[in-house]
Amino acid sequence: MLSKNRIKYINSLKIKKYRQLNQSFIVEGSKSVLELLDSNFTIEFVLTTAEFQQKYSSILSQHKTLIETVTLTELQGLGSFQTNDSCLAVVKTKENDFLRAEASEYVLVLDDVSDPGNLGTIIRIADWYGVKKIVCSESTTDLYNPKVIAASKGSFTRVQVYYTNLPEYLSTQAGNRMVAGAFLGGESLYDFKFGTEGGYIVMGNESNGVSSDVERYVTNKITIPRFGVAESLNVGIATAVILDNMRRGEGQTGN
Amino acid sequence: MLSKNRIKYINSLKIKKYRQLNQSFIVEGSKSVLELLDSNFTIEFVLTTAEFQQKYSSILSQHKTLIETVTLTELQGLGSFQTNDSCLAVVKTKENDFLRAEASEYVLVLDDVSDPGNLGTIIRIADWYGVKKIVCSESTTDLYNPKVIAASKGSFTRVQVYYTNLPEYLSTQAGNRMVAGAFLGGESLYDFKFGTEGGYIVMGNESNGVSSDVERYVTNKITIPRFGVAESLNVGIATAVILDNMRRGEGQTGN
Repeated sequence: MLSKNRIKYINSLKIKKYRQLNQSFIVEGSKSVLELLDSNFTIEFVLTTAEFQQKYSSILSQHKTLIETVTLTELQGLGSFQTNDSCLAVVKTKENDFLRAEASEYVLVLDDVSDPGNLGTIIRIADWYGVKKIVCSESTTDLYNPKVIAASKGSFTRVQVYYTNLPEYLSTQAGNRMVAGAFLGGESLYDFKFGTEGGYIVMGNESNGVSSDVERYVTNKITIPRFGVAESLNVGIATAVILDNMRRGEGQTGN
Repeated sequence: MLSKNRIKYINSLKIKKYRQLNQSFIVEGSKSVLELLDSNFTIEFVLTTAEFQQKYSSILSQHKTLIETVTLTELQGLGSFQTNDSCLAVVKTKENDFLRAEASEYVLVLDDVSDPGNLGTIIRIADWYGVKKIVCSESTTDLYNPKVIAASKGSFTRVQVYYTNLPEYLSTQAGNRMVAGAFLGGESLYDFKFGTEGGYIVMGNESNGVSSDVERYVTNKITIPRFGVAESLNVGIATAVILDNMRRGEGQTGN
């Protein structure tokens, strides 16, 4: 039976302060936990139902010492999401390791993306389009928020995220490299050529777009052409459309 | 002061059964209500704070008879969303009017999209890309769900939605026209040519994709190329990427 201390500990990790204090976070649901078990994250423990253990016995048997069997009721009482009927893991957060765009690499830069669902979705999109690094402003929502982890659908295990002061970062890192930014009234995305040199692609806040402090480092303002009347696109949608045009423009073949 | 009957009525409209019974639905928040006032929907009444009325007095004065002033506390006690601090409208639903793709027109077809946030996002995307009609399976989530309306960010006032039995619809409407469908393992979206003849673009359910009954009418299976590892893209994201490639392919210029 799940101890009171463990329940208290898990619940504390729904709050950013306690995630930082304990350097741990929660991963919920079968898809995310299975991808987690296949990653290099350090897992503290995994709570699973007997049914889930049976279904994935070959994978879970490699992590035996970490596993505690719980009832469905215990599990559902814990999670942030109603749909979790299989498992929950508590995992160590990673160091905030410095990231930069290597030669020919495109790195995504997020300037104050505040909605956890949007950040998670953007991580999933980056993972689809083969973008492996995301650099975030310190004001961007916390990567380890359970809603971010859930929306990333396991892609948080493959995409690296680094939080930093963006104007300072770009002033030292951008150099002569391209810093493309999503703006209204910029150059049409369809005419814009993403070179083979790589660089940075900046997406702004849901309400306010890219801040003026970051805008100073943007070398190319690009805009998704509009054919109808809607005022704007969600930042996750805009990220997908821009990365899709980038890959298409590179003439690479996906799989 | 807001009457008990009105509170009860508004709360009942959060449930599909009562929306259908009363043929009414709720619109929340300033952006959505302002777009609503600019549309041809029939409004029953609008509840607004005094502050909001003052800010938009020129617009609201044209709808004087519909307006009831409420306090912030009354308003926040009513809505489905925490962020609503301005207004709420109760509006008559529209008839489920038949829609078809006219010559050179592309119509979006949704086969059992079940998440209200996804349907709302898709309506907003359609409105951005100038797609004016969406045909939905009867199992697709209810257009008038407050979460759909909220996620559409006012675009529900411009995009028409028609619910029908999709296999029956396509058997009579598709004829020799293109019915493109989003599938894994289809033709690359980047190689696919959207003609100038228009047709139908089918998006499937979040977990199961396009159903086999609808798949029979799909003339072209298309796939968004993948460059990384993520298993899939959210249906809203996929819709945006496909419509973006369609418009780009048409060689039209957005604004």
